[in-house]
Amino acid sequence: MSSRLDRARELTTAAGADVFLAARPSSVTWLSGYPVDIETGPSPYALSPLVLLEPDGSLVAIASEDDAPAFEELGCRVVSFPGFTIDALDPVGNTRRALRKAVAGRRVASEPGWLPAALAEGHEVADVTDDVVRARTIKDEDELDRIRTAIAVCDAGQRAAREHARPGVSELELWGAIRVALELAAGERIPALADLVTGPRTEHVGGPPSRRILEEGDLVICDLVPRVDGYWGDSCATIAVGEPKEMARRQWAASREALARGLDAIRPGISGHDLDALVRGALDYPHHTGHGIGGDFHEEPRIVAGSSTVLEPGMVVALEPACYGGGCGVRCEYVAVVTDDGCDVLSRHELEL
Amino acid sequence: MSSRLDRARELTTAAGADVFLAARPSSVTWLSGYPVDIETGPSPYALSPLVLLEPDGSLVAIASEDDAPAFEELGCRVVSFPGFTIDALDPVGNTRRALRKAVAGRRVASEPGWLPAALAEGHEVADVTDDVVRARTIKDEDELDRIRTAIAVCDAGQRAAREHARPGVSELELWGAIRVALELAAGERIPALADLVTGPRTEHVGGPPSRRILEEGDLVICDLVPRVDGYWGDSCATIAVGEPKEMARRQWAASREALARGLDAIRPGISGHDLDALVRGALDYPHHTGHGIGGDFHEEPRIVAGSSTVLEPGMVVALEPACYGGGCGVRCEYVAVVTDDGCDVLSRHELEL
Repeated sequence: MSSRLDRARELTTAAGADVFLAARPSSVTWLSGYPVDIETGPSPYALSPLVLLEPDGSLVAIASEDDAPAFEELGCRVVSFPGFTIDALDPVGNTRRALRKAVAGRRVASEPGWLPAALAEGHEVADVTDDVVRARTIKDEDELDRIRTAIAVCDAGQRAAREHARPGVSELELWGAIRVALELAAGERIPALADLVTGPRTEHVGGPPSRRILEEGDLVICDLVPRVDGYWGDSCATIAVGEPKEMARRQWAASREALARGLDAIRPGISGHDLDALVRGALDYPHHTGHGIGGDFHEEPRIVAGSSTVLEPGMVVALEPACYGGGCGVRCEYVAVVTDDGCDVLSRHELEL
Repeated sequence: MSSRLDRARELTTAAGADVFLAARPSSVTWLSGYPVDIETGPSPYALSPLVLLEPDGSLVAIASEDDAPAFEELGCRVVSFPGFTIDALDPVGNTRRALRKAVAGRRVASEPGWLPAALAEGHEVADVTDDVVRARTIKDEDELDRIRTAIAVCDAGQRAAREHARPGVSELELWGAIRVALELAAGERIPALADLVTGPRTEHVGGPPSRRILEEGDLVICDLVPRVDGYWGDSCATIAVGEPKEMARRQWAASREALARGLDAIRPGISGHDLDALVRGALDYPHHTGHGIGGDFHEEPRIVAGSSTVLEPGMVVALEPACYGGGCGVRCEYVAVVTDDGCDVLSRHELEL
């Protein structure tokens, strides 16, 4: 199995370019391992870092002085520009000059949906966005390690959700307790996405936590998506506050069976389309059956109708079948990595109601 | 005083363009009021929304179907493209087509440091980045309302910091309690940046919360920067855990006096350079004395040496003088809005040690 840098070099050559320039933050992480800062939006001081893959397989980061030490530790050469400063600001010009120096007139393969126009100017850029998406589907061992860590962080968050989901607590308070558990498990502040809906809100699939107060008999859909060291984890459980109603039990059984069916079917050779059909069965949820994870929280392989992507060893698949209706909803989600003859399930969190 | 849409139209005309296309997420918020989703990085489904200012002063959002209803509620016409979907993905192509339809061949003024190359292609784009930065310095009344709300959220976070800063608690746990308070005050999950350093870490200015456990006699530098409804708040206090040492008392007195001096001096006509010199005095902190806030967490007017920006009514200034050394550090920060003859201080949090 080729490593990701080999695949990135192949797609660069195939596009007739000399160097690959990662512009999408998740592709920068993919090449270099650097977890690009995303949580507070674009910095007023500096543009987001870029990474250039040289023909000899070495990496050059075009990054602010704030990011430079971390890139160097990861083995990248760095062409740097100022970061946080009390001097005059020129975030765009600084990056443009550093990039020109690094590219030195060579033909560039890149991702123009994420490469700012001010940086692309003056370069010959071949669009390899789709090739990169495909190349990223199969994870290297060090990427799988990071995904395993992110899933362990999810597990810790799910334990906290179960511990703190009580009548009288608001969704936002519950989310706070979960986030503390995620960050204590990660050992640092981390970006985190989550569906956290309770009671009647569970019928409508998802949404962020609100001021709603949990009541006896509620369901809680807790879908936790933290990013740890640049790689996203994903996990979902549905928790009953008190005694679950009959409808909830039936929805749970159907979702749980669908998930078991899916995990049993994950192996090299099955397509996203077929896996979706097999898991979905007679269930009618208005979202994908599953998706890959990595530097983005949803990646290929997408487990949806019409997907011709065929599973291969090293792909990571999150499956999240669900049942909504009758005033409530249940979803459960586990993540697995495709092996030579099946899959290893990475998620360990409780799935009981 | 002209409104921001007037100023945006003026800078568009001055650049010889027909329409202004906001590409920087904070400029999208500035024009439309829409708090662009930033917390989890670029979406795998859709590019970030853009907003076009028409010559008649109306706004057109180029946005995903997920964002469209919110833009419509804010009075924007929307040219939409698919968001979250189980169908085939084409985030870049979808946005490109919607943008072409909205621009319809007209000359565009924009921010090419944030406009993706794939979207700029085929358009004539004048760079008005610096003009927009200047136009954004003076806040309209509705922007000030949002900043006041964000500052009130900061106040709630500072109260929680003071309540939970106890020996035996880790920085990450303290941060968790603060974040819950911020989100309860905001009523929703919000992006938040923070310096949260304790004990010896306070000598080194800032950094994210770590696993360090608070001890008796520690200082806590708590600099909270939450984004509420698209506008950033900012605030800093230094809290003593137990009895503060003599050095900490002296650092506190010097920072506190510098802040009082600065708040007293904020009025139309003073330059960023002069305000920096006046507040900094004999203090030797390695960062700015202050900065504007708005759709970005640091904006003009920058209160730094060499800044020729002159304060005007409607500008917002955060001042954050500090003292570091001898194994500890103290910083305090208040936010004020420049009025016709002085300023209104918006921050209300406790500044005592």
